Amino acid sequence: MRKIAAVLFEDFEMLDLYGPLEIFSTHRDAYQIVTVAETTGPVRASGGPATLAERSFAQDVEQGSDRGFDYDLLLVPGGRGVRTQIDNPSLLSWLSQAVGVAELTTSVCTGSLLLAKAGVLNGHRATTNKNAFDWVVGQAPDVNWQRQARWVEDGAFFTSSGVSAGIDMALAVTEHLLGAQAAQDAADIAEHVRNADPRNDPFAAISGARA
Amino acid sequence: MRKIAAVLFEDFEMLDLYGPLEIFSTHRDAYQIVTVAETTGPVRASGGPATLAERSFAQDVEQGSDRGFDYDLLLVPGGRGVRTQIDNPSLLSWLSQAVGVAELTTSVCTGSLLLAKAGVLNGHRATTNKNAFDWVVGQAPDVNWQRQARWVEDGAFFTSSGVSAGIDMALAVTEHLLGAQAAQDAADIAEHVRNADPRNDPFAAISGARA
Repeated sequence: MRKIAAVLFEDFEMLDLYGPLEIFSTHRDAYQIVTVAETTGPVRASGGPATLAERSFAQDVEQGSDRGFDYDLLLVPGGRGVRTQIDNPSLLSWLSQAVGVAELTTSVCTGSLLLAKAGVLNGHRATTNKNAFDWVVGQAPDVNWQRQARWVEDGAFFTSSGVSAGIDMALAVTEHLLGAQAAQDAADIAEHVRNADPRNDPFAAISGARA
Repeated sequence: MRKIAAVLFEDFEMLDLYGPLEIFSTHRDAYQIVTVAETTGPVRASGGPATLAERSFAQDVEQGSDRGFDYDLLLVPGGRGVRTQIDNPSLLSWLSQAVGVAELTTSVCTGSLLLAKAGVLNGHRATTNKNAFDWVVGQAPDVNWQRQARWVEDGAFFTSSGVSAGIDMALAVTEHLLGAQAAQDAADIAEHVRNADPRNDPFAAISGARA
């Protein structure tokens, strides 16, 4: 049983979070999902409802390496709130510590910029939202950003392109951890036509056109 | 500005709710999203976090037709919790009243069975989750259930197939209400490869094989 930390912050993008969580929830014997944020309680999505955070960054920091930061997977969404969170030291410091312990770190959309600002993506290949690609690259030039990518796997990092790309990334993570049949089952149960090729990115062209 | 009631109940399916809400949230000048449930406060998703309900069914009932039930669109998710909610008179009665007032009613997955049990789908064409198709048909034989359908539009009802099909249904609703360009923009921003043909349903075969 792997514990997943789903990171919340004000104005996170709904589908960035809930697309991957839907896929992970298919195999409920394999994963336990915990929501983590700066403070426990409601955290409002961008243009949507509030999700309840069950755990705070401070609780992990207080409990330290003995009992805190006991996450096997991290899921970092993007969204409008990223523009504020890139200057939030408590989130970035929590990320940096949590990534150091986790087996895998995943991000969707501009969530990868938070990882970059936490200093853990330097020199790594990664991707991000194609509608915000050039802004992200300018913010974090030491990451090896990939424009043509539905998602990028590099070592312990699975970073995905924007919003719905997180679903295909989560299926790739499921294949990596639980095997190809488990990934196909999760896609079929979600009635999702899977894009299983990380280089098949129809939205790279949008970014190119806007670049 | 149209008001959307996103219906919550214990063990709703995460992506059923958040896929369509993601699409609707793209056009934030066009829609306002309100979460509604039996009681206000946290409502846990199936295998996932809790979403906060902002309004209760009883509040609408108490305020009656003067100020209650002021929703233009309804979004009814499915999920494991449907097996309990089909016997919940307060949810079914709220649905029946809310549908009577709303411009459009949408459902994802087995959410359409809740509409059927509320008595509003009799004689209508509708669809549902393909993994649960035969169970749903047995539960509500007076609905004209469509097996081969990503979603079905019939009058004021847009019912979709399982889980991720809600995203394509919400894009069809967006096209219906705001035009084709608004739907394409929403799909592009979500980096979602749209299935714009309601009869293109790769998962009907799964249901056929299991039937």
